[in-house]
Amino acid sequence: MTTAFDVQPAAIDEIVAFLRGALGDRVNTSRAVREQHARGEALDTHLPADVVAWPRDKHEVCAILARCNALGVPVIGYGAGSSLEGHVSAPFGGVCLDMSLMNSLITIHAEDGDCVVQPGITREDLNSQLKGTGLFFPVDPGANASIGGMASTRASGTTTIRYGSMQHNVMAMEVALADGTLVRLGTRARKSSAGFDLLHLMIGAEGTLGIITELTLRLHPLPSNVAAASCAFPTLHDAVATVTELVMSGAQMARMEFLDEHQVRACNLHSKLGLPEKPTLFLEFHGSETAVREQAELAQEVAASNGGIDFKWATHPEDRTQFWRARHMAYFAALALRPGCVCIVADVCVPISALADAVSQAREDIDREGLVAPILGHVGDGNFHVLFLAMPDAPQEREAVDRVYAAMVDRALAAGGTCTGEHGIGMGKKTKLIAEVGQPVVDLMRDTKRAWDPKSILNPGKIF
Amino acid sequence: MTTAFDVQPAAIDEIVAFLRGALGDRVNTSRAVREQHARGEALDTHLPADVVAWPRDKHEVCAILARCNALGVPVIGYGAGSSLEGHVSAPFGGVCLDMSLMNSLITIHAEDGDCVVQPGITREDLNSQLKGTGLFFPVDPGANASIGGMASTRASGTTTIRYGSMQHNVMAMEVALADGTLVRLGTRARKSSAGFDLLHLMIGAEGTLGIITELTLRLHPLPSNVAAASCAFPTLHDAVATVTELVMSGAQMARMEFLDEHQVRACNLHSKLGLPEKPTLFLEFHGSETAVREQAELAQEVAASNGGIDFKWATHPEDRTQFWRARHMAYFAALALRPGCVCIVADVCVPISALADAVSQAREDIDREGLVAPILGHVGDGNFHVLFLAMPDAPQEREAVDRVYAAMVDRALAAGGTCTGEHGIGMGKKTKLIAEVGQPVVDLMRDTKRAWDPKSILNPGKIF
Repeated sequence: MTTAFDVQPAAIDEIVAFLRGALGDRVNTSRAVREQHARGEALDTHLPADVVAWPRDKHEVCAILARCNALGVPVIGYGAGSSLEGHVSAPFGGVCLDMSLMNSLITIHAEDGDCVVQPGITREDLNSQLKGTGLFFPVDPGANASIGGMASTRASGTTTIRYGSMQHNVMAMEVALADGTLVRLGTRARKSSAGFDLLHLMIGAEGTLGIITELTLRLHPLPSNVAAASCAFPTLHDAVATVTELVMSGAQMARMEFLDEHQVRACNLHSKLGLPEKPTLFLEFHGSETAVREQAELAQEVAASNGGIDFKWATHPEDRTQFWRARHMAYFAALALRPGCVCIVADVCVPISALADAVSQAREDIDREGLVAPILGHVGDGNFHVLFLAMPDAPQEREAVDRVYAAMVDRALAAGGTCTGEHGIGMGKKTKLIAEVGQPVVDLMRDTKRAWDPKSILNPGKIF
Repeated sequence: MTTAFDVQPAAIDEIVAFLRGALGDRVNTSRAVREQHARGEALDTHLPADVVAWPRDKHEVCAILARCNALGVPVIGYGAGSSLEGHVSAPFGGVCLDMSLMNSLITIHAEDGDCVVQPGITREDLNSQLKGTGLFFPVDPGANASIGGMASTRASGTTTIRYGSMQHNVMAMEVALADGTLVRLGTRARKSSAGFDLLHLMIGAEGTLGIITELTLRLHPLPSNVAAASCAFPTLHDAVATVTELVMSGAQMARMEFLDEHQVRACNLHSKLGLPEKPTLFLEFHGSETAVREQAELAQEVAASNGGIDFKWATHPEDRTQFWRARHMAYFAALALRPGCVCIVADVCVPISALADAVSQAREDIDREGLVAPILGHVGDGNFHVLFLAMPDAPQEREAVDRVYAAMVDRALAAGGTCTGEHGIGMGKKTKLIAEVGQPVVDLMRDTKRAWDPKSILNPGKIF
């Protein structure tokens, strides 16, 4: 799968001609547009496709796939371009399918708590269109990603501890297979045992098994009450210990986010938070008035017992919004700490009991190597990120980053964790995947891929 | 996959000799034992394997698979024999692997809320061994099934509305592949985006992709407070409407079970419940004292607004136990309604908004055909069962059952539901699976199976 297959130039000419005939001006071959579509965030791999096409409906997607499959031309799905592991890069050229025109909310089934959307809709668009229904879509990776992209990387985020990840909130999908066949996976029922769970195989397949043309999403009732708080801690260990205790208490926090002192400083500078520059937790509580009060009291207690200082309530919605906007801008706030730098976002996830050590050992390594790298994470899930800020022209810095990141992954795996909690493998983590699951499992993935996409036209060069 | 492949008699002799050499007296070829292992509950298909073997560890499982794969001999996994769709039947003969000796609880990671078990342990054994840890394994299909079997049919049950099904509570697996290679799928981290989600492909694969040799399970903190109640309703529609309203309220009930008047009568006779013989809901609430009170008040309100009568609290643990024992014995209670009958258990799942009509239309069909068939279900999930009680010697009754069941499935599919919420496809529902997902998706399942098990030795004749 990783061995380059060469695409005949004639095939590219033929596909471009086909696309112009079928999509008219919704086709672009200019270098600038192709390069912009090859670049996600963070990973500095951007190999452009030969052509970018904007399909308007599932039938166009199927027709394009059928033709590309016949000609052996690669097809790379593109959502909002917020991928962090080079998923949208086109190492073998081919067609980039920009799904941004397929961005409708098709149906809301309010009485069942689900909705049907096209893959190009972003989570923020979706939630603003859901206003007034009393329902919302909870998965929140931070970036305003497309729903199709979020499904393809098995995304999660700040609310996963309470509402689950894409794995739990995609009920069904319509998928265009490599040869252009359209299939439906999953149903609108809340559970099913009808044969292989191909739906979950598609969730996280990174565009290598099919192109998603429609998704049925689980929606959740808006909580009647919401409260948020931040709390600073003398040490990282105290903050994380608080999280571990709260998770094991069974209290259903809605959000439990960690920012280390460097990330707090970045957010203070970027979003004027004015928080003490110490290891900090952002917490959010959803539910009935009494449920929220109970959780909040418990959180305050546990925080205090772990040396928590300056427990601050964000009672007004606008304060909460400021909190979470700051959290969502954390990536850009970090970038601003070091003008001109590139950011390598590390992503590991460990069992809760291993979290405190995993985070503090990462911090030790960062400091020992003299790197600039804030740490933050969805610590309620055991998931954390290091934002390595490296200068592009400093190879020895990059080597140090690679050393620290490799050690983070080794420790995560040794603790029974994973090399990626939510960003996926893409082009950036293939060797780390082998280290995690072993070659026989990677072979099993490759064999499965071959069964679905015999000519390997779907996002080749990713995962394996 | 469905086309019979013939196993050479010589190959069977060779495998039996191999098994005797490797497992000694943990091998049995007697007709009685083979037939007992070919029979699940309910479905009257029981084609015996040629030999039953009791492996003691993963290495024996791998060795047996490697040899069977080399000889092209089928291997059928066997847990507790509580399957309802003929999963343990051996249409092409071969080796039945009885996993009951691999029934240990290997490790408890209390601080992470997970544990590692062998596949042969039953859910009741597991929970009794977890006593004192403050944790429990919630998935409760009713029968005291084996954990490996529950994973293989993607089982769920009475607590799924609150705690999820096997899909949500299996974190990792060790699997012996067809050729005897041992692989690990999943991790102990709460989430991962590391490549294809092969773990969820295995969950519900009905033993056709590999033999599970170990599982890592998500455990949940025991609720600090538990309350249960039953409530009778004038009509089935009122009972189900109550459920729909409660589900959409977002209140997190722990259990929400429906029994129609016929099932209540069966349970009264069998378990001396003394309940009014009307459509009835069994409800259970878990959480803090205030959370339980809130949920209970809401449930009582909603029930009353839907004509609920005789809302009975089971405050004492023993009363609760009696409730749920009666619920768990429902199948046998139903059988007792009609001595000498066989029971065909129908299983469909629909979106909540379609539940009331789906259940009442099933009841109309049953009555019109003059059949004896109580209805019950995990209605909080939109999942319900009809227990068709048919006399073995009455073909016209069986035809009527098939008509009513087929209509149930057609309506479930038309409503966006599924032909099986939790029992699986096995040998009993292959045509219903095609009706649900379509031939291209069944082909995709078959191609995927071929990639994992090229010689199709793993539970052949099931699903497709």
